[in-house]
Amino acid sequence: MDHFDTVVRNGLIATACDTMAADIGIRDGRVVALGQGLARGRHEMDASGKLVLPGGVDAHCHLDQPMGEGLKMADDFLSGTRSAACGGTTTVIPFAAQIKGQSLRAAVEDYHRRAGEKALVDYAFHMIVTDPTEAVLKEELPALIAEGYTSFKIYMTYEDMKLDDRQILRLLAVARQHGALAMVHAENADCIAWLSEALEAAGHTAPKYHAESRPMVVEREATHRAIALSELVDVPILIVHVSGREAIDQIRWAHAHGLRIYAETCPQYLFLTASNLDEGYEGAKCVCSPPPRDKANQRIVWDGLSNGLFTIFSSDHAPFRFDDPQGKKPGGKEVAFPYIPNGIPGLETRLPLLFSEGVRTGRITLNQFVALTATNPAKLYGLNPRKGTIAIGSDADIAIWDPHKEVIIENHRLHHDVDYTPYEGMRVTGWPVTTLVRGERVWDDGQVCAPRGHGRFLPCGKPDMARPKVVDPAAGGHYVANLPDALGKLAQSNRA
Amino acid sequence: MDHFDTVVRNGLIATACDTMAADIGIRDGRVVALGQGLARGRHEMDASGKLVLPGGVDAHCHLDQPMGEGLKMADDFLSGTRSAACGGTTTVIPFAAQIKGQSLRAAVEDYHRRAGEKALVDYAFHMIVTDPTEAVLKEELPALIAEGYTSFKIYMTYEDMKLDDRQILRLLAVARQHGALAMVHAENADCIAWLSEALEAAGHTAPKYHAESRPMVVEREATHRAIALSELVDVPILIVHVSGREAIDQIRWAHAHGLRIYAETCPQYLFLTASNLDEGYEGAKCVCSPPPRDKANQRIVWDGLSNGLFTIFSSDHAPFRFDDPQGKKPGGKEVAFPYIPNGIPGLETRLPLLFSEGVRTGRITLNQFVALTATNPAKLYGLNPRKGTIAIGSDADIAIWDPHKEVIIENHRLHHDVDYTPYEGMRVTGWPVTTLVRGERVWDDGQVCAPRGHGRFLPCGKPDMARPKVVDPAAGGHYVANLPDALGKLAQSNRA
Amino acid sequence: MDHFDTVVRNGLIATACDTMAADIGIRDGRVVALGQGLARGRHEMDASGKLVLPGGVDAHCHLDQPMGEGLKMADDFLSGTRSAACGGTTTVIPFAAQIKGQSLRAAVEDYHRRAGEKALVDYAFHMIVTDPTEAVLKEELPALIAEGYTSFKIYMTYEDMKLDDRQILRLLAVARQHGALAMVHAENADCIAWLSEALEAAGHTAPKYHAESRPMVVEREATHRAIALSELVDVPILIVHVSGREAIDQIRWAHAHGLRIYAETCPQYLFLTASNLDEGYEGAKCVCSPPPRDKANQRIVWDGLSNGLFTIFSSDHAPFRFDDPQGKKPGGKEVAFPYIPNGIPGLETRLPLLFSEGVRTGRITLNQFVALTATNPAKLYGLNPRKGTIAIGSDADIAIWDPHKEVIIENHRLHHDVDYTPYEGMRVTGWPVTTLVRGERVWDDGQVCAPRGHGRFLPCGKPDMARPKVVDPAAGGHYVANLPDALGKLAQSNRA
Amino acid sequence: MDHFDTVVRNGLIATACDTMAADIGIRDGRVVALGQGLARGRHEMDASGKLVLPGGVDAHCHLDQPMGEGLKMADDFLSGTRSAACGGTTTVIPFAAQIKGQSLRAAVEDYHRRAGEKALVDYAFHMIVTDPTEAVLKEELPALIAEGYTSFKIYMTYEDMKLDDRQILRLLAVARQHGALAMVHAENADCIAWLSEALEAAGHTAPKYHAESRPMVVEREATHRAIALSELVDVPILIVHVSGREAIDQIRWAHAHGLRIYAETCPQYLFLTASNLDEGYEGAKCVCSPPPRDKANQRIVWDGLSNGLFTIFSSDHAPFRFDDPQGKKPGGKEVAFPYIPNGIPGLETRLPLLFSEGVRTGRITLNQFVALTATNPAKLYGLNPRKGTIAIGSDADIAIWDPHKEVIIENHRLHHDVDYTPYEGMRVTGWPVTTLVRGERVWDDGQVCAPRGHGRFLPCGKPDMARPKVVDPAAGGHYVANLPDALGKLAQSNRA
Repeated sequence: MDHFDTVVRNGLIATACDTMAADIGIRDGRVVALGQGLARGRHEMDASGKLVLPGGVDAHCHLDQPMGEGLKMADDFLSGTRSAACGGTTTVIPFAAQIKGQSLRAAVEDYHRRAGEKALVDYAFHMIVTDPTEAVLKEELPALIAEGYTSFKIYMTYEDMKLDDRQILRLLAVARQHGALAMVHAENADCIAWLSEALEAAGHTAPKYHAESRPMVVEREATHRAIALSELVDVPILIVHVSGREAIDQIRWAHAHGLRIYAETCPQYLFLTASNLDEGYEGAKCVCSPPPRDKANQRIVWDGLSNGLFTIFSSDHAPFRFDDPQGKKPGGKEVAFPYIPNGIPGLETRLPLLFSEGVRTGRITLNQFVALTATNPAKLYGLNPRKGTIAIGSDADIAIWDPHKEVIIENHRLHHDVDYTPYEGMRVTGWPVTTLVRGERVWDDGQVCAPRGHGRFLPCGKPDMARPKVVDPAAGGHYVANLPDALGKLAQSNRA
Repeated sequence: MDHFDTVVRNGLIATACDTMAADIGIRDGRVVALGQGLARGRHEMDASGKLVLPGGVDAHCHLDQPMGEGLKMADDFLSGTRSAACGGTTTVIPFAAQIKGQSLRAAVEDYHRRAGEKALVDYAFHMIVTDPTEAVLKEELPALIAEGYTSFKIYMTYEDMKLDDRQILRLLAVARQHGALAMVHAENADCIAWLSEALEAAGHTAPKYHAESRPMVVEREATHRAIALSELVDVPILIVHVSGREAIDQIRWAHAHGLRIYAETCPQYLFLTASNLDEGYEGAKCVCSPPPRDKANQRIVWDGLSNGLFTIFSSDHAPFRFDDPQGKKPGGKEVAFPYIPNGIPGLETRLPLLFSEGVRTGRITLNQFVALTATNPAKLYGLNPRKGTIAIGSDADIAIWDPHKEVIIENHRLHHDVDYTPYEGMRVTGWPVTTLVRGERVWDDGQVCAPRGHGRFLPCGKPDMARPKVVDPAAGGHYVANLPDALGKLAQSNRA
Repeated sequence: MDHFDTVVRNGLIATACDTMAADIGIRDGRVVALGQGLARGRHEMDASGKLVLPGGVDAHCHLDQPMGEGLKMADDFLSGTRSAACGGTTTVIPFAAQIKGQSLRAAVEDYHRRAGEKALVDYAFHMIVTDPTEAVLKEELPALIAEGYTSFKIYMTYEDMKLDDRQILRLLAVARQHGALAMVHAENADCIAWLSEALEAAGHTAPKYHAESRPMVVEREATHRAIALSELVDVPILIVHVSGREAIDQIRWAHAHGLRIYAETCPQYLFLTASNLDEGYEGAKCVCSPPPRDKANQRIVWDGLSNGLFTIFSSDHAPFRFDDPQGKKPGGKEVAFPYIPNGIPGLETRLPLLFSEGVRTGRITLNQFVALTATNPAKLYGLNPRKGTIAIGSDADIAIWDPHKEVIIENHRLHHDVDYTPYEGMRVTGWPVTTLVRGERVWDDGQVCAPRGHGRFLPCGKPDMARPKVVDPAAGGHYVANLPDALGKLAQSNRA
Repeated sequence: MDHFDTVVRNGLIATACDTMAADIGIRDGRVVALGQGLARGRHEMDASGKLVLPGGVDAHCHLDQPMGEGLKMADDFLSGTRSAACGGTTTVIPFAAQIKGQSLRAAVEDYHRRAGEKALVDYAFHMIVTDPTEAVLKEELPALIAEGYTSFKIYMTYEDMKLDDRQILRLLAVARQHGALAMVHAENADCIAWLSEALEAAGHTAPKYHAESRPMVVEREATHRAIALSELVDVPILIVHVSGREAIDQIRWAHAHGLRIYAETCPQYLFLTASNLDEGYEGAKCVCSPPPRDKANQRIVWDGLSNGLFTIFSSDHAPFRFDDPQGKKPGGKEVAFPYIPNGIPGLETRLPLLFSEGVRTGRITLNQFVALTATNPAKLYGLNPRKGTIAIGSDADIAIWDPHKEVIIENHRLHHDVDYTPYEGMRVTGWPVTTLVRGERVWDDGQVCAPRGHGRFLPCGKPDMARPKVVDPAAGGHYVANLPDALGKLAQSNRA
């Protein structure tokens, strides 16, 4: 019991439900003891006056994803996971995106090659399904789910990725039958196209029109539709990167009707507004989808974090350099808004921003912070108890925070390969000073410590959540119980 | 003043707002005097003990619409309008449906040929746009609107008719710019296709599965989407044939958010339920879309009629013979539910059913009855004050009702060319005993009186309704005010 | 037929549902003919280019109501009805308020004395029940209802008038059993008292704090409570003077749940805001309850008028002189806000304000204007068809409007006895140029014409509306059907 | 580190967020170590194959509360806490009820006397304020809050306990200023009285009419009112014993509007229905308030437990013997429903019922079970981290569960002093086999082990929750920010 590789001593540990003053004994990369006055370890780390938190799980980020048309993401698995580690995140779940015509497995294998020798922190993959052929639906996807790729993303927008409702239904049926979790990017493609065309035709091409081309109603509509499709198939889904009031209202409506809809939000909806896009072409730095809204919506998103509407808080890190012909200036030019690559960096700043403005102000508790940023994503994607908490048997993925450290966010201090941060100049209080992945220091005292390739691939289990709603005709008006046996049995088997 | 062609004497007249004991003086087909003790007319009609109501306006019916695949509608303009007249309806607005590839004008002209020599009551046309080409959007449709075809229907389902969201947006923009009214059939085509395929695959092909293939969530989703598209373009729409609670909730949500969404319902949602489809192949008689729901929904639809959620009440008459290879048994066979032609007859029974179960029970007032069935549709489609009321200058379209007449609905007493009625055996109290169109008797004392071709075409004006919502940023969160000038000017001009 | 006392010729007549160019023939104070080219009358009135509308019915106004503590209403039945007539209103329904300890009948008789020799236009009375003793509940109230006093008001606030929930329930049960309509002033007395005390204690006594002492939540709470009590007794009620979003949301919630809740709003919620109270002691001129809200709420109230949420539009005329020790400066002093008498004048300006900003802008149609201001209140209070419309047999209560007349509202032009109007300086377009009460000119060409006492008392019939909801256990969760027989029979008898 | 009084070895530990296989080292009544292979303790407990959970915290129960009129609660602190311990509960928070005229402190001292020498498990007290005099509000209550009585209950019903809205506002202001939590029993007293009187008058006196006298609308109204009062004072509250859909809808509405409303439910709303009251006078056994509803509501309550609407799950144990003149048959007689003492026993069955039907069916996760029954109540009432979890430094309050143990609930097996259980005959799977309080066995292997008086009083800290909403005028329509300085400063100070 008392032969520890490392002891993290005297810190204040917080999990998603507990806060305790205790030492942590680590052996073979795992937490093996919690207690006060643990025996000395081979390595001793003093966490006096510090918070000792589970390392963050960033369940929504894009790394080294191949882009068409001469574009290139700024972060690969080395710089991306480095940036994550320096911001207290110890697990990332980027996407393995299928290119149309490609098999899913080929996509997954490609991403393994990209990640394998570079990642500093552990990683799993969500798939992005853009081409749900019969082979994908009936063979590849079930096989990959069984191998630990238990979540996949569905796009309702972007010309090269969007699926139609019938494709979505078929994918949701696979999710239900095989116990996977579908993540949905909910914006109505046709509305965006129609508005964008009108705006461009009127000569309104500056980055700020990106926000006008994707008003809240566009997100609301797709959110309602995704909920309806989920209800029809009777399977939970996750709505990713929810931006504000109108989509939130739909999600709450679903909850009020007994539907199991999970929701995610991101820092950009708490700390940015559409006005950040209105700074000439500099606005391109904040072009992401859905776009940031206004101050009133920030508050509503905060409420949703506080009152449990949101289950997870992710970065949606999608890194493009601003002053770069492969980035925000495609071909070296300032382009019309529809042609600006979408996305902003955020892996490193996700946790400090939420801690400073959420925990320190009392909007959320410290335990909620851990739940939203680490435990819940680990559970939702089947990585808990291995990841997302500090508990006996869990990987020793730990972020030691100095809760009083004042930092001005400046891009030159960050560790991604993007040439800007949308949060430049913001002051935050609280930052991780040491990050351990499986007991090894990856970030400590201002230095990146781990060798490239330290990160390992994580096969995911089934989502850990209360089981899907069993639709009950007695509950009033739901139809599924009337479905014929074929579907009914599917339902039964899934619930068994 | 006192030379009347006809005087309808001693009746109790009801309009959408008034109830009065008075005589009606008619000259040249129009109402020219209301008063007590009017001078004798050349023709005298005694309405003592009778209700004298504006003739009904049935704003949703299908007559002689060409069908593909060997199908044929049972009613042409002769039998259809005959049936209408015998049930107290004096104006019908059937559809002129564009076939893909066809010009809209060709469709309209075709329908004029079909109607011209046959109709017994007056008629206008809605268009059905299935192929919104550039030529249709920019030239034909605006021109036809200007000529008096001021409404058109958009299908969100049916493989050969459905439009995608972008097509819908473009059509709504035309409606807004030219002051037309878009009617929306709101059901999600992909959901229906997915469910139908699953049901068929499971061998569930009986008519009752038609209802299971179109559960309420399918209608709710499309209703929400239609509302969102209407909001985006900032133009009112009408949701046709709303069937029950879930779609109603969405419409009420829209009203609560200041949106101008009109809604229609039909007798099948008050008097039928899904169980009517569950009578072996006889159930095919009640196959229509959306399908009838359950008893609880009937009540909710009644509430919506009573409290103003619904603006109009139409039949959605879509006549197919049951025992007919061109009707409900295509090719002479009992087919799987997806292949049963959709639609039920209802032109003649619409008014007596609503009168008997609505007015006599007190669920709606007599004035509401007139508003829902005559005045409101006439206003919504730009036919008022000529149609839909009894007022000085209006056409003398009048139904004289015996409010105490007890009738058992039996198909052999009806005047359509369909071989069944879904309401067979129902008892109603109250039926029109005389129907006048422009002062001429079309139906009287159990006889059809008018010559074929008595009906005339009615060019429609602009919808008569409070103006579309002027989206106001101060009202919180609506985006249109931020639109660039090009769209903004469109908005302005439309509101001027 | 053609011996008319008066013919109003060549006007454009609008009712709550129709608009027609016609002459009106009047005999013995009633409309006896409508037509074009009517025979000459003894009196001819040319309405060419004018709108001929039913005279307004102002169903919420206070005239000559005895006040405690040295206060006095500025308008008696003479000046009040004079002002009404000059603004196009031909029927008023003020209140006969019971003083605690007084019998209801004594109150009614007192008001008859006050009205009888003075009124210029016709009048009915609502009762105000402040002391619902056994005798009142079981004898007086039923007897008075039978005699034509078919509506009564319940106050949930004001120390000397408020009833507790149990008293309200007992009164609602009387309303149900005897077919009367209860009007509810919905504000929570305790909340107001608590806030007022806190504000006064903090030295915040200016008129503007009146608005802060009655925030929307105070109105919302009482509105929800009134709805719940109405639901419990299963009887419709009317929520009077609804001020904005929060109460509106509750009313809409009730409609969505199938409850029959009627709602009224007033000009002050369309044309004033709380900032009108923030003008030093001048703000006392706009002190009324509920207080005016903000611009966003004005819009929401407009929406409610347009989309049918509101059934009637009244003035809530409650006249106190500003510079008067019996008025807004009790004892001659500028007092703290809780001691300022509540109420503003509005009988004369009600219709022109709504016409100018509602009809001319297209927010509501001309027919809606008539419905909201004349027909609906007449129906709701059992005065139609005698009042509230232009129809054969109706009283010839007619307002002839010049729709183009531009008027700057200035108090010196008004005909009440109040020394201010809250709308001073507002420009409106459209004003009644002639007002007839039972065929006699009361206001014409800038002159008051009728002798005092021209107005007559109107006994009211039962409310004319679709019948109360029959609570149906199949509809889900309503409890009344489970009530024991005693109440059940009450329910049955009331619905029969 | 390794000198343990007790080691609980080889169990599967679950907290509100984690599940881990680990040993627990206990010293001096506290958890001092978690790990695998801990050193031997003086006492060893083998938990192989068992679940090791935090002992339950039952935050709503009534023990030995003095009743008027010859009634007597069946359980004192001995039998009550014995029953609790045998059902896995290690902390109870009963009520110290103020009798009108009594000082709060006298009430508290009385309860200390009642509890002190009897309790087997630890306990804190909520106060019940029935007489909020100036002295209570300004002196006693603040002093008692400071001493560790940080919660108090407000009754909106029961003649001898109910407070009016103004009293409630004043109490909420104290809660806000001093950081206490107000618990609200939300039923409308006047409605209940009115219905009860009507029912009794009709001779409907059987226990089943208790449910009819308190329909859901009565609970909904009071819930909305409590939320409004909470909003006005800008302080969180807890709605206790929420029974079903209508109150739940109000709470969700509050959450959607950013309000901090906590909610509790109880086993009776999951496992009983109103039909349990309909068994002749035996129905008196299930008379509690609010009454159980129907099956559909059970499902909705389950949804609320699963999706986070409810924060805590308590028993509302209120013990009266059935066949007892001091119990359900007052004076030895079968009385009319209004005179049946309200309440049912439930301390011992609370956890097994929820475990069996919640956790084992997958409706809630094991972690949610712990959160709802132990961690959340401990946090809400300021007892965490000492109580409600298994963490380093926490009291060793532990329930060791055999998750496979099948038990038929029969009253003779229970340990309370009530002569019945409403759950007689229900089968559950899973029951605590050992219960430790501060490391000492209180219940083990079917035996009660602890001496009377083992339980200790727990002073409570401030509620541990995200801070109250700072009402923000920019968020739209909330008024408090406009309050004058006096209240504004109160707000500030409370939020600082």
